[in-house]
Amino acid sequence: MVKTNPGHFFEDFRLGQVIRHATPRTVTAGFNVLYTALYGSRFAVQSSDPFAQAIGYPRAPIDDLVVFHVVFGKTVPDISLNAVANLGYAECRFLAPVYPGDTLSAVSEIIGLKENTNRKTGIVYVRSTGFRQDGARVLDYVRWVMVRKRDEAAPAPGDQVPRLAQALGPGALGEACPPIDGAAYDVVLAGSPHRWGDYAAGEKIDHVDGMTVEEAEHQMATRLYQNTARVHFNQFTEGKGRFGRRLIYGGHVISLARALSFNGLANAFHVAAINGGRHVAPLFAGDTLFAWSEVLDKATLPGRADVGGLRLRTVATKNRQCADFPHRRGDDYDPAVILDLDYWVLLPR
Amino acid sequence: MVKTNPGHFFEDFRLGQVIRHATPRTVTAGFNVLYTALYGSRFAVQSSDPFAQAIGYPRAPIDDLVVFHVVFGKTVPDISLNAVANLGYAECRFLAPVYPGDTLSAVSEIIGLKENTNRKTGIVYVRSTGFRQDGARVLDYVRWVMVRKRDEAAPAPGDQVPRLAQALGPGALGEACPPIDGAAYDVVLAGSPHRWGDYAAGEKIDHVDGMTVEEAEHQMATRLYQNTARVHFNQFTEGKGRFGRRLIYGGHVISLARALSFNGLANAFHVAAINGGRHVAPLFAGDTLFAWSEVLDKATLPGRADVGGLRLRTVATKNRQCADFPHRRGDDYDPAVILDLDYWVLLPR
Amino acid sequence: MVKTNPGHFFEDFRLGQVIRHATPRTVTAGFNVLYTALYGSRFAVQSSDPFAQAIGYPRAPIDDLVVFHVVFGKTVPDISLNAVANLGYAECRFLAPVYPGDTLSAVSEIIGLKENTNRKTGIVYVRSTGFRQDGARVLDYVRWVMVRKRDEAAPAPGDQVPRLAQALGPGALGEACPPIDGAAYDVVLAGSPHRWGDYAAGEKIDHVDGMTVEEAEHQMATRLYQNTARVHFNQFTEGKGRFGRRLIYGGHVISLARALSFNGLANAFHVAAINGGRHVAPLFAGDTLFAWSEVLDKATLPGRADVGGLRLRTVATKNRQCADFPHRRGDDYDPAVILDLDYWVLLPR
Repeated sequence: MVKTNPGHFFEDFRLGQVIRHATPRTVTAGFNVLYTALYGSRFAVQSSDPFAQAIGYPRAPIDDLVVFHVVFGKTVPDISLNAVANLGYAECRFLAPVYPGDTLSAVSEIIGLKENTNRKTGIVYVRSTGFRQDGARVLDYVRWVMVRKRDEAAPAPGDQVPRLAQALGPGALGEACPPIDGAAYDVVLAGSPHRWGDYAAGEKIDHVDGMTVEEAEHQMATRLYQNTARVHFNQFTEGKGRFGRRLIYGGHVISLARALSFNGLANAFHVAAINGGRHVAPLFAGDTLFAWSEVLDKATLPGRADVGGLRLRTVATKNRQCADFPHRRGDDYDPAVILDLDYWVLLPR
Repeated sequence: MVKTNPGHFFEDFRLGQVIRHATPRTVTAGFNVLYTALYGSRFAVQSSDPFAQAIGYPRAPIDDLVVFHVVFGKTVPDISLNAVANLGYAECRFLAPVYPGDTLSAVSEIIGLKENTNRKTGIVYVRSTGFRQDGARVLDYVRWVMVRKRDEAAPAPGDQVPRLAQALGPGALGEACPPIDGAAYDVVLAGSPHRWGDYAAGEKIDHVDGMTVEEAEHQMATRLYQNTARVHFNQFTEGKGRFGRRLIYGGHVISLARALSFNGLANAFHVAAINGGRHVAPLFAGDTLFAWSEVLDKATLPGRADVGGLRLRTVATKNRQCADFPHRRGDDYDPAVILDLDYWVLLPR
Repeated sequence: MVKTNPGHFFEDFRLGQVIRHATPRTVTAGFNVLYTALYGSRFAVQSSDPFAQAIGYPRAPIDDLVVFHVVFGKTVPDISLNAVANLGYAECRFLAPVYPGDTLSAVSEIIGLKENTNRKTGIVYVRSTGFRQDGARVLDYVRWVMVRKRDEAAPAPGDQVPRLAQALGPGALGEACPPIDGAAYDVVLAGSPHRWGDYAAGEKIDHVDGMTVEEAEHQMATRLYQNTARVHFNQFTEGKGRFGRRLIYGGHVISLARALSFNGLANAFHVAAINGGRHVAPLFAGDTLFAWSEVLDKATLPGRADVGGLRLRTVATKNRQCADFPHRRGDDYDPAVILDLDYWVLLPR
């Protein structure tokens, strides 16, 4: 009997199939330490227990994107080991805070399947949910991914594309954020005087700084998340492949962009939801990442006067500064753009 | 008086000499975090407190190989600072579990000395023991290492080669593994349905995945273990040496191979003993490591119905996939082989 | 309104100005883990809770230089974002021990301002103080830094150079070191028999070992300290600059030299003060760092029979061994010298 995991191929999936993923993970305080070393994140709530406690958290929470990456990593061996490309994210909500010592596990449900016309691949739509050790859901998101077929002649396992929200509404935000005491939120310690009310829809912010990526960093990050996607680690194989290089994990790009966004969004202390995201082009070691953001929308949260939401588009580029906010160029993207992320953050009001 | 440590030369050792090594080390939960980032290990027992607790551990233990590397590292300044080569390991047993917060220290005894015929070097056989802060032995192993003489004319300090076991028997296994509740061991969360009974002697497993090594990673790992062997860190000197490169610490290779072996041996949650190991060829940064394993033997443990032992040979190669299980080629090794490790792991029955 | 931080330019500073810096930081046990992985530090007090407890600490403290780097990092966005060069340090005292779980924050006061004759830049003298969550001062130091003007025509904001001590006296030492039980200090576990009394003024020690620096390591270190100085991270910009390379953070050099100094100064368990330091030349990834030290002075501490101070000069070089103690060459430095650090360490008497 073969003992190794070949991963699922497109024809192996079934609509409604539920997959419990392996390797529950206790996220200790060391995660925040290493996460900071990998990205340079400076948000005060995640950096300081007393700051977090002053505003209402029991202690500094685990960074939201650590939660995302750890849950995402668990899904890889079952969902995307035979993937050609990760195509998109939708309806990603953070549902409960995660603190050092909590343990995360993940379950996925196949919610859509669509064979491509070449019959060599198909699109798998999957809703993945992260759980805490007490059973609480901490994260819920949909991604779709192009997966190879083992056998081109195999019949398509389904033909259904789920309806997904273009964006989550304000009612979907804030479950992972305890009530905040805005008066106790020290904007000097947080690094910026600009609260929620100081931002306007349409406002664009160049995050100015650049960050060059090294192989050792993204390999350490991606292994930290126990993400086993082969393209990130295996130069022997990738060297003969399409790019001749190892690919940087897309989530690494998101975390770098989020860390850079501190410069301009220092009080956006919580990522509450991800409406959608597109990895427009690959990033490689040696490239320097820049980012800018646009405020797409502002929202108050039902029943909450403590925090407000900003819907942001954060665009990351490689080897190109963002003072002129590069994004689309005609029907296509500016060739320097690598990430186009649409998400909600919370700020104190 | 010279304040720096020149290390011991061959003629400085004495049979029966006992050396207490420096720098006791508290291994906190952050070790497991960084260890995962360095190797991508995914064994559930070491990854999750609740998983470990469900089967009988008080919490997730420190990875067995962290214990090995930390104890090994302590011995380097006293044993192998003037070593030409680390020749082999034998009789390595894990004797008590180590948990975050425990402190490790090490003591070695010289058990054999044999001058080489060129009189420039000699072989030092040493039994090193790791201790916990409460005095419990956690690890015991023999290694032998070729050490330079300071003065070729110096008389040999002894002439005795110890008898070492070819392999440890089942009675030597399991002391570092508490009683396991096999019914509570969730094979889905662990990542594989294959328990001890599903493996057969002679079975070979290609671990499929490859991992490319970077200088920054192996330097961070080796420093984490406070291993001071100069060949790993000093490009200025090594650049003029035999290989022109820094050498990857052999233990880094063992940890990479162990992490890759998860794919095929996900329930082999505990390394109980190392019978022997040979670093067949050096590994350098930029190389990609692959691995395969053969089940050499199976054993039940005296008085234990909860776990069983598999004696494994795990072979690591560089820049060569392992689907055809490369190992010996005539009297020699396949030129791609870098590690030949013979060890016992425990799986739930 | 611009939301990003442009940093202060020379003309923005005022004498007596007090700046509270952003991002309080809880330093957990994981800091010591990652710090060891980055530098290979082996001092027993910082490595082992039982060793520290045996001599009088409540537990292993956070490494002194971690405290320095974290406090320093906080000052960068407000003080040196527009700096041309970090010129020197003085009067740096460690005032209270920091343990895992403590939270650090920082406040700076502008104590001197001196425009350069070219009117393009000026020197800013700043005293920065690190605080613990309970309000205790943990660190206090002066640095001066050359900062660009936004507008050459702007009037100088002041013209005053503070008087700074050439060196701190014995009375300024030891506040961060609890009373030590010297009898319980195990020199074998600490790695050297040489206590304070074994060192003599004028004694020089070659620390022998070399350490090659990688980009990923210094980026991770510098981000761990949440230091945002652009020259360390942005190859896209630095590649077009004066050196064509990212610069290694000067504090990284200090930590590497301190870690290497263990070989010869293993019982110098506490950095009590930094009298002055000069980053003589830049360090780049790929370079190998060596170090040597001279005992400049010895001092007993008022009222303390447990520990004594050594005033050290530690010199670090790149790509040059230090057996002949390279330092000055005529009026200038030996071209291999990169760091000239004058500081006090404590050893058990």
